[in-house]
Amino acid sequence: MTISIDVSFAYSGDQPTDVLLQFEAAAIPEQQILSCDTKLGDAEHIARIPAQDDIGERIWVRSEGRFEIDYKAEVEVQRLIADVSELCQLDTHDLPGESVQYLFDSRYCQADRMQSFVEDEFGELSGGKRVMAMHNWISSHFSYVPGASNANTTAVDSFIERRGICRDYAHVMVTLARASSIPARFVSCFAPGVEPPDFHAVAEVFLEDQSTPGGGAWYLVDATGMGTASDIVKIGVGRDAADVSFMTSFGLTEFIEKTVTVSQS
Amino acid sequence: MTISIDVSFAYSGDQPTDVLLQFEAAAIPEQQILSCDTKLGDAEHIARIPAQDDIGERIWVRSEGRFEIDYKAEVEVQRLIADVSELCQLDTHDLPGESVQYLFDSRYCQADRMQSFVEDEFGELSGGKRVMAMHNWISSHFSYVPGASNANTTAVDSFIERRGICRDYAHVMVTLARASSIPARFVSCFAPGVEPPDFHAVAEVFLEDQSTPGGGAWYLVDATGMGTASDIVKIGVGRDAADVSFMTSFGLTEFIEKTVTVSQS
Amino acid sequence: MTISIDVSFAYSGDQPTDVLLQFEAAAIPEQQILSCDTKLGDAEHIARIPAQDDIGERIWVRSEGRFEIDYKAEVEVQRLIADVSELCQLDTHDLPGESVQYLFDSRYCQADRMQSFVEDEFGELSGGKRVMAMHNWISSHFSYVPGASNANTTAVDSFIERRGICRDYAHVMVTLARASSIPARFVSCFAPGVEPPDFHAVAEVFLEDQSTPGGGAWYLVDATGMGTASDIVKIGVGRDAADVSFMTSFGLTEFIEKTVTVSQS
Amino acid sequence: MTISIDVSFAYSGDQPTDVLLQFEAAAIPEQQILSCDTKLGDAEHIARIPAQDDIGERIWVRSEGRFEIDYKAEVEVQRLIADVSELCQLDTHDLPGESVQYLFDSRYCQADRMQSFVEDEFGELSGGKRVMAMHNWISSHFSYVPGASNANTTAVDSFIERRGICRDYAHVMVTLARASSIPARFVSCFAPGVEPPDFHAVAEVFLEDQSTPGGGAWYLVDATGMGTASDIVKIGVGRDAADVSFMTSFGLTEFIEKTVTVSQS
Repeated sequence: MTISIDVSFAYSGDQPTDVLLQFEAAAIPEQQILSCDTKLGDAEHIARIPAQDDIGERIWVRSEGRFEIDYKAEVEVQRLIADVSELCQLDTHDLPGESVQYLFDSRYCQADRMQSFVEDEFGELSGGKRVMAMHNWISSHFSYVPGASNANTTAVDSFIERRGICRDYAHVMVTLARASSIPARFVSCFAPGVEPPDFHAVAEVFLEDQSTPGGGAWYLVDATGMGTASDIVKIGVGRDAADVSFMTSFGLTEFIEKTVTVSQS
Repeated sequence: MTISIDVSFAYSGDQPTDVLLQFEAAAIPEQQILSCDTKLGDAEHIARIPAQDDIGERIWVRSEGRFEIDYKAEVEVQRLIADVSELCQLDTHDLPGESVQYLFDSRYCQADRMQSFVEDEFGELSGGKRVMAMHNWISSHFSYVPGASNANTTAVDSFIERRGICRDYAHVMVTLARASSIPARFVSCFAPGVEPPDFHAVAEVFLEDQSTPGGGAWYLVDATGMGTASDIVKIGVGRDAADVSFMTSFGLTEFIEKTVTVSQS
Repeated sequence: MTISIDVSFAYSGDQPTDVLLQFEAAAIPEQQILSCDTKLGDAEHIARIPAQDDIGERIWVRSEGRFEIDYKAEVEVQRLIADVSELCQLDTHDLPGESVQYLFDSRYCQADRMQSFVEDEFGELSGGKRVMAMHNWISSHFSYVPGASNANTTAVDSFIERRGICRDYAHVMVTLARASSIPARFVSCFAPGVEPPDFHAVAEVFLEDQSTPGGGAWYLVDATGMGTASDIVKIGVGRDAADVSFMTSFGLTEFIEKTVTVSQS
Repeated sequence: MTISIDVSFAYSGDQPTDVLLQFEAAAIPEQQILSCDTKLGDAEHIARIPAQDDIGERIWVRSEGRFEIDYKAEVEVQRLIADVSELCQLDTHDLPGESVQYLFDSRYCQADRMQSFVEDEFGELSGGKRVMAMHNWISSHFSYVPGASNANTTAVDSFIERRGICRDYAHVMVTLARASSIPARFVSCFAPGVEPPDFHAVAEVFLEDQSTPGGGAWYLVDATGMGTASDIVKIGVGRDAADVSFMTSFGLTEFIEKTVTVSQS
């Protein structure tokens, strides 16, 4: 499936300020970048560095005054689509080193505290069946409420209040998976069905790879129901939202505007 | 300086349980492992995997019943010792990719919330001078109180209550550094002066490397004052304590006993 | 039913320290104090003041060194026992002034955050039927785990971790009731079935008084299942545990020992 | 000093909804209500009940559709003005029963956690001198930032982030006072210097009454510096903001608009 992406946003700083950006579709095997065009404003300094797990890039920008970003891309999603509910869970002692950090608690995902809940609610299931049961539990108990969460809102907060936006749904999904000893990471992405149109966020869980016995692979799960594995274009991954913000400012900046258009062509 | 380490601990599980261990001195250039001997009990499965940033190893163990660990090592610490207060801070836009994750918030280190405080209290300092001022602030305002913290205690909690153990001092140090745009990570380690003797934890900050203009390096900072850069033996590093516990159990285990002896020879 | 109570505890302060105690069965119509004997150690100052809602008394003590308290009482519980599930909920706009503070959030009971949950889970029930459904939900989802909570543990924490002691069960019960617009308070008490024997804590909800049409009354609810309305002897009430500790120290004291024996005779 | 107050606000509910209002100047000795006029819209039910500590009244309203409130008053503030820094602190064991609840932790004021900080920072002062030192500490370390806090923001949160609005300043002031064993309550009020004009909130501390040896009295403290004891008109008091909201809705309402004008005449 081919996805067209058109993003523009702008911010401004009164003095030279460092900003870290991550907003482009990642060039990785599961999604082919057919075309892309990134326009950045004038800056004192621009440097690209690899992003987490070598998925995508981050861009350091040092600039003053108004800074504009325009990005257009055509991306063909080519990932193998699995029926997650059919996938087995790897025994924790068979997990490879690079997946282990995604078992641990992170800023917004305090999985350790949710172990009684997942055992109580989903204790008879494992692997993909458990992941989908948790996905369905979130879908049916949460309300999508823009404005109900902020930069301090954790998965525990969202779980208590049962509402939030894509970021919060993904945090809760990641947290419940980790509490079930399933590595889970946070994915910043584009998806055509997101309403209102914006950057999107979903979870990704590490389950047995059907094509490689004994091996594992990452599978996308979107508890908001707005994206699917066949139309999600990944920007980057992280332990949670703290790691893959599209813009992190190291100094005072004023955010001016943002337009995100994602369509299926 | 040569450090002798002697650790033994034991736990027990009623049924086969996966446990992740990380308790050995890391084999890295800054510390030479003169000798080491790791004895693990009988287990159904044992596998070594690389730990975070390739510093040290984690060991997966699947076992049932009582499981004992004995570890002895002689380690020669050879790291270059810097006067941290003389070191400059790298501009954030010059930070290399691998250091960037250590700018972000993590489970126990919500640096984003502490920016007003660090600006207010240490705003006129930067780099190593700021790190040492923050180190001294913690030393003079905190009380070392075993039992005052638990697995949920964050840097914000410790900052409010002004007390804790090495883990908490390290979390606050890491948090204040990140809030100052200085990458900081959590180091699990051995140090001879720790009282009562136990595994120890300190912070490590990323500042300009004096021997490589424009480059950066990691420097140890122990706000408890119990360890020094010349006698600390690193076990592993992470975003915070969530990443480098000496033992993480994936299932129900009972911790039985632990003895840690560290001496300078 | 006649309940025999025998309590002794002791603490010590290095210097003259003020302590507020509340440990005696309250002299209120629903429980007749057949006999009581309170022995307090030597103190610089002792003063009795009325406790919250005029239920029971608090005792100010200023003393130095070891201070011992011995209390024995025989209490006949005479309260009318209602089938809570048969009771109606008063419309909030008919609630009398003295009950209104028990609708509001308190230190450990952040009812405001639980409104989505109670609406989602218990939305079709009201009044006593809802209270009993919430009681049963707590009973079936929580584990009684001494040591799992501390002085910072809120109802939200207990709800997330699904475990705690009587204090935590009562906090969650109070919180769910308030989130349902039912005034609820925290009751410190004695009950013969408490295991291990100790001071106990339960919730009390304000529902329609069957004997006074249009009026309301307080009804005991113990989600731990250890006490019943017919054998609970009230010590005091409050918004939550912050208000009715048996001992609050204003200065440094060391708690030495405590024995609580409650039996039915 | 005579203060003129003019308030109007409106809300709307799709179905009959209970709302609790508290927005009028309290008729208490320290402030004489020269004139007042409260206009309430049409409602199914309106009932007045006494508010906390018998200071002011709460109004229960049950209505449907748009509901408007208009309130005009002239109030002469007559309270005795003390130099708070000259006042002594009562020994806790001499505190009267009605002040004791204001020593305890409440929803937004977790004083227990701030004891190390107050001891460390203000340990050599007591009574009014300590209160004024805490007032000055807040004034000099906090920034008044509308929008930085929300209904979940506690004094601990504000202390960490060092910013907030009047509600947050008052919560921190109350918390530091209670952590110093000084009873402190939250006061909802009107004051002419509030910018932007709105309902205001300040703290009130219980210190020795200069005119009644051995007795105590309540003294206003406004850490925002916008109000003074001579021009503050009290609406009501509570443990914290949870108790004295000008409007608490028990069901879904939409808040439409609010205008508050307070002037000195």
